[in-house]
Amino acid sequence: MKRKDYIAKHLSSLIGSDKVKSSPDFCISYSYDATPTGGRGIPDVVVFPETPEDVSKILSFANEELIPVYPRGAGSGLTGGAAPENGGIVLTTEKMNKIIEIDEDNLGVLTESGVVTYTLQQEVGKRGLFYPPDPSSYKYSTIGGNIAENAGGPRCVKYGVTKDYVLQLEAVFPDGTITTLGARTVKSVAGYNLKDLIIGSEGTLAVITKAYLKLIPTPEDVRTAMAIFDNVEEAAQAVADMFKAKVIPTALEFLDRNSIVAVENYAKLGLPTDAGGLLIIEVDGYREIVDILIDRALEVCKKAGAKTIKKAKSEKERKEIWRARRELSPAIVQLKPKKINEDVVVQRSKIPELIKGTYKIADKYDLMVVNFGHAGDGNIHVNFMFEPHEADKVESAVRDLFRFTIELGGSVSGEHGIGFMKKEFLPLEVGKAIEKMVAVKKALDPNNILNPGKIFDI
Amino acid sequence: MKRKDYIAKHLSSLIGSDKVKSSPDFCISYSYDATPTGGRGIPDVVVFPETPEDVSKILSFANEELIPVYPRGAGSGLTGGAAPENGGIVLTTEKMNKIIEIDEDNLGVLTESGVVTYTLQQEVGKRGLFYPPDPSSYKYSTIGGNIAENAGGPRCVKYGVTKDYVLQLEAVFPDGTITTLGARTVKSVAGYNLKDLIIGSEGTLAVITKAYLKLIPTPEDVRTAMAIFDNVEEAAQAVADMFKAKVIPTALEFLDRNSIVAVENYAKLGLPTDAGGLLIIEVDGYREIVDILIDRALEVCKKAGAKTIKKAKSEKERKEIWRARRELSPAIVQLKPKKINEDVVVQRSKIPELIKGTYKIADKYDLMVVNFGHAGDGNIHVNFMFEPHEADKVESAVRDLFRFTIELGGSVSGEHGIGFMKKEFLPLEVGKAIEKMVAVKKALDPNNILNPGKIFDI
Repeated sequence: MKRKDYIAKHLSSLIGSDKVKSSPDFCISYSYDATPTGGRGIPDVVVFPETPEDVSKILSFANEELIPVYPRGAGSGLTGGAAPENGGIVLTTEKMNKIIEIDEDNLGVLTESGVVTYTLQQEVGKRGLFYPPDPSSYKYSTIGGNIAENAGGPRCVKYGVTKDYVLQLEAVFPDGTITTLGARTVKSVAGYNLKDLIIGSEGTLAVITKAYLKLIPTPEDVRTAMAIFDNVEEAAQAVADMFKAKVIPTALEFLDRNSIVAVENYAKLGLPTDAGGLLIIEVDGYREIVDILIDRALEVCKKAGAKTIKKAKSEKERKEIWRARRELSPAIVQLKPKKINEDVVVQRSKIPELIKGTYKIADKYDLMVVNFGHAGDGNIHVNFMFEPHEADKVESAVRDLFRFTIELGGSVSGEHGIGFMKKEFLPLEVGKAIEKMVAVKKALDPNNILNPGKIFDI
Repeated sequence: MKRKDYIAKHLSSLIGSDKVKSSPDFCISYSYDATPTGGRGIPDVVVFPETPEDVSKILSFANEELIPVYPRGAGSGLTGGAAPENGGIVLTTEKMNKIIEIDEDNLGVLTESGVVTYTLQQEVGKRGLFYPPDPSSYKYSTIGGNIAENAGGPRCVKYGVTKDYVLQLEAVFPDGTITTLGARTVKSVAGYNLKDLIIGSEGTLAVITKAYLKLIPTPEDVRTAMAIFDNVEEAAQAVADMFKAKVIPTALEFLDRNSIVAVENYAKLGLPTDAGGLLIIEVDGYREIVDILIDRALEVCKKAGAKTIKKAKSEKERKEIWRARRELSPAIVQLKPKKINEDVVVQRSKIPELIKGTYKIADKYDLMVVNFGHAGDGNIHVNFMFEPHEADKVESAVRDLFRFTIELGGSVSGEHGIGFMKKEFLPLEVGKAIEKMVAVKKALDPNNILNPGKIFDI
């Protein structure tokens, strides 16, 4: 019997044949995620477990037979986290898609890991509750995938990242052990914090099957405004001063000069194409305070040198302001046939240096660069735009960008993770800590079956 | 040469004799922490490293010679975390006590681990910045100790625990490797989150030498009130409803009937001694909102059945309200010669059940129990008061309490950690996850030199 058939047959006997697919169409469909380099490897089988016990059986078998297992949420990752590089088993959580309990008394929700983030947000929203993390994939990515990647989003500047909302996890380790990690209480110091170790470990340590998430009351109201600056320094000054003025915005999105030009040419919003930086500022909270906060924020922008200021007076105007950000992705793909988007992150005060550095790198390689992103937390999406024949130059430019980011004390990934895409740069950033990460991996996954080849090679 | 002398001599040659003390007075002074059971074991030497390199040399030596090392902040822990049970080396961080940089642009502070939490709060406060975690030991405990125990405090209900403020750590592993874990940015997903694994690991995985902490702007204003209820159910209902009314209080302290009686008899505050529950409510934030919030909170209390409501109209009245909580510790020690304080935590909705459970347990063993604590996050300090000859009964009562807390889905420790005091109960709470915790310990401290015998035995 072929290995593929053996695996499929054995798994079918363990969890039921309806949960095991090995036909070419399934295997090809699950061979890639949203990473721009495309697919890498085709799995032997795709499994659709419905319970932690199913997951436990799959992992125990794979662990004994040394078969790689690639956990997968919605496959929306951008660094290859779900790519089955060495064949084996793709384990998709899509059938574990029930919201188990919304706990209004304790502001929490117990959910299976395959639930789509947007679905969960809608359901808890009906009870006046709010799950803040908002990666741009939130309409299709899953809670489990968000947890495995510790997903961020624009709102993180005020509300924090996925990790800040996960109180408890059900996770299955490679030897099949089903565990509950963390507690449903805000405080708990009982033993090692394995929960936060699993969060962001990109499916390399355990498979997440359930999560108990912290919720907060839905903010009562929101205000949105735009401020346009002559140069990036002024915009960055406004960002820093806003926090000093005690305004923690819900979103603080930045567009650099190339972004402004691109979106204006594409969407004709009436933006000044000679501007050097644009901020979209959103504040939320109690209805009695939002006007006060947005005015404070705009006062800061004026003092920092903003030439144009626009405050949304209606939901229509609010949407209009957000168009500058929303139309950006379709706008920039008009510029060149290909793009690569790197989500580096630096401290807020280093944003001007980072932006200027990207211009220098782009000049060096004669490339176009477009920068935008979450200025409030220093997380800038650097987009190199290029023709297909320029791919090598872009690779060098990205390498320069990562080195420069690390020099600035920043991180090569604020949101997207390492996957296989950024493995080369992880040691540069974390130094000797990588030895300790590898030691942890070997302790929890001694046979290296879970998502092998991701984050680092061992 | 005696082992003690050999260790002292060798360490002196490595880091300088002024940083190594082995005289009996030093060794006895560092033989215990604040744990009520008193001292356990006397170290051979006490070392006072001043740099991460000193720490690295101490650990490398201890690791080769298999000498236990007990890291120590201020020794204010309550579960024996700093107790040198097997002799060896006590490593105190008290000489690493410099605040290195307050970063106003990025709202952060880089500090050595031996800095006292209160000192740090005062220093950043001068710049209008705020470090919220406030364990009751904050006036003498250290940042490093707070991180090692993931310390909490009353303000955590709104602001989160120590972990939520640590962005980056410098930590030295048992083999002497000096690492930087985490990033100075709010977002970072570069490799495993070892930072949050080290936080709360009670000095068993690495020695923390520096931390980069997140700060927030100091809240502009604060309002304080008190609400008194006939019974614990009403008080608990008010707690739950407050969050639904979108009021996240800065502090929400609860006193049960025995607490009210004890503090009234001691401090004569005019509290009704037939009340079943008392809440102290504090809100903070923008000056335009604090009055609105405290009124909302009190409206909730009234609806839940509060008989008496008192709103502080001045700083003097505010202090008066807080006396009910502050005088509680001196008040209850009047009741009986001995007490044991357990910091169990349950979900908010389970508070009435927990409190009633403690009364049942107290009845069973004919003991006095006094409950108070941080109702907002379900963290209740259960105090059994007893005569010296009742120690055995208390031990049984505590055992019942832990079992009952776990039955309620809670945690045996919200703030104090496991140390050697709660080792017996950790497996009850975390189940099979303990095997994975032990695997991580063995991977990062293969010779079991760092704080051996704490959290679990291996």
